Amino acid sequence: MEVIQTLKEFIEKRSKFNNKSIGLVPTMGNLHRGHLSLVTESLRNNHLTIITIFVNPKQFGAHEDLDKYPRTLTQDCSQIERISLDFPEKEVIIFAAKSVCEIYPVGFDTSISVGKITKILCGKNRPTHFSGVTTVVYQLFQITKPDTAYFGLKDFQQFKVISKMVQDLLIPVKLKALPIVRDDSGLALSSRNQYLTPEHKLLALVLPATLKRLKDIIIEQGLANALALKKDQLNEKKWDYIEILRQDDLQTPDSKDKSLIILGALTIGTTRLIDNLLVEL
Amino acid sequence: MEVIQTLKEFIEKRSKFNNKSIGLVPTMGNLHRGHLSLVTESLRNNHLTIITIFVNPKQFGAHEDLDKYPRTLTQDCSQIERISLDFPEKEVIIFAAKSVCEIYPVGFDTSISVGKITKILCGKNRPTHFSGVTTVVYQLFQITKPDTAYFGLKDFQQFKVISKMVQDLLIPVKLKALPIVRDDSGLALSSRNQYLTPEHKLLALVLPATLKRLKDIIIEQGLANALALKKDQLNEKKWDYIEILRQDDLQTPDSKDKSLIILGALTIGTTRLIDNLLVEL
Repeated sequence: MEVIQTLKEFIEKRSKFNNKSIGLVPTMGNLHRGHLSLVTESLRNNHLTIITIFVNPKQFGAHEDLDKYPRTLTQDCSQIERISLDFPEKEVIIFAAKSVCEIYPVGFDTSISVGKITKILCGKNRPTHFSGVTTVVYQLFQITKPDTAYFGLKDFQQFKVISKMVQDLLIPVKLKALPIVRDDSGLALSSRNQYLTPEHKLLALVLPATLKRLKDIIIEQGLANALALKKDQLNEKKWDYIEILRQDDLQTPDSKDKSLIILGALTIGTTRLIDNLLVEL
Repeated sequence: MEVIQTLKEFIEKRSKFNNKSIGLVPTMGNLHRGHLSLVTESLRNNHLTIITIFVNPKQFGAHEDLDKYPRTLTQDCSQIERISLDFPEKEVIIFAAKSVCEIYPVGFDTSISVGKITKILCGKNRPTHFSGVTTVVYQLFQITKPDTAYFGLKDFQQFKVISKMVQDLLIPVKLKALPIVRDDSGLALSSRNQYLTPEHKLLALVLPATLKRLKDIIIEQGLANALALKKDQLNEKKWDYIEILRQDDLQTPDSKDKSLIILGALTIGTTRLIDNLLVEL
């Protein structure tokens, strides 16, 4: 395993693997078991696994938590090291850019934006968020040139947005999405969970519990009942959003749709949490 | 020479040239000697020259001339054919997408935008123009995968914008810009010149003449005098803009700058013309 902090060194190292299969796990660091499941999947399926650790300023809004976002490089490396011991024949590079300029050189002034699908859910009140995501993911793809890139399904909308970019811009990278990893209480793992007090964590459980309740209602009483309940009872202020949509395009489903997703976001204290649950009928 | 009208056929054909040097001349058709100088330069320097002909809707504003923009595929092909006879050992493909869907499939919803440099000059009153340009050029690069792409310097700002995109997004294509080609009267060749009546054409000559006058003043009396003249006498309504800027970054020059450019745009009748003149001190 090797940790590289400059683009120059990374490009040099990367050029030695031109004929090998390469998996990319792009992260903002502060790794938890969700990230590690992606690393494991990549290790299993590729000769070289590249984990990028980059807290991308472009995807944070002006009043969001860019500065306090947890940076834990030493622990992140130890966790990856531990997992990679199970794959002694595989190669691992951690590319942890030592400064923002390694990814966006001084004067960088180009952005990639996806349209309609970025205007809803997590994009509704965060107009530059997804453009920040697609720009950095594009850039990391150009730098690392992976065969396959791995993403967690907790950020379902993000995965859809990235998939749209890859499709539209004819980017030759396969995308693979892995299931949400949860803690024992049912809370989806997130680097932001550590902002929560024990009391906040209890309050946060309303998120997975509500998704589960809606899923049960969809299965037992049908989509129309679940949509009605959502409309009547869940329009409280605490929700940033809670939606039942089609998995495929994140549009409003009708009774013929078989693959649905329930997505929710809420802010507890100053911490914004998201979660989702797939429903196959 | 081969004319291809679908993406599928083009991709198949293109795959046969993977180890050859490839030049791309992206155009909107209605070729004039300006375009043909690019084709000749590409023929000279590459095994395969690809000329794309695509009137790109994304770079036209809502009230611009998309519908009436001249489409002259048969003549365009004859002109290219004639030139390519001088290069019997070289290959030529014209990719003239038969519909917009060949370049932007149904549902296409991604855009690439460059920032600051697109907000001035031709971008000032055309907020989506350059994003349309960068998106289509990116897409044509992905489809054609050229080693070198050729552009005319008449659209100097466009060349700068595309260069910025290529630099920022780490796109492995060399860009080459060729001088403006003018008719005998001094008017820069443009597909839009044919919208002009003979009387309009005479009026249009104020554009190259003014650029030339400013260039002479810069050389004979210095930049400050030229800037003063521009400010005092050229602020008439007929100009969309007339600016003396640094070639490098299209910012306001100071007395130390040696590479300048004078750029002008004016609308004659309903036809918008642009032109520029480089000044090396």
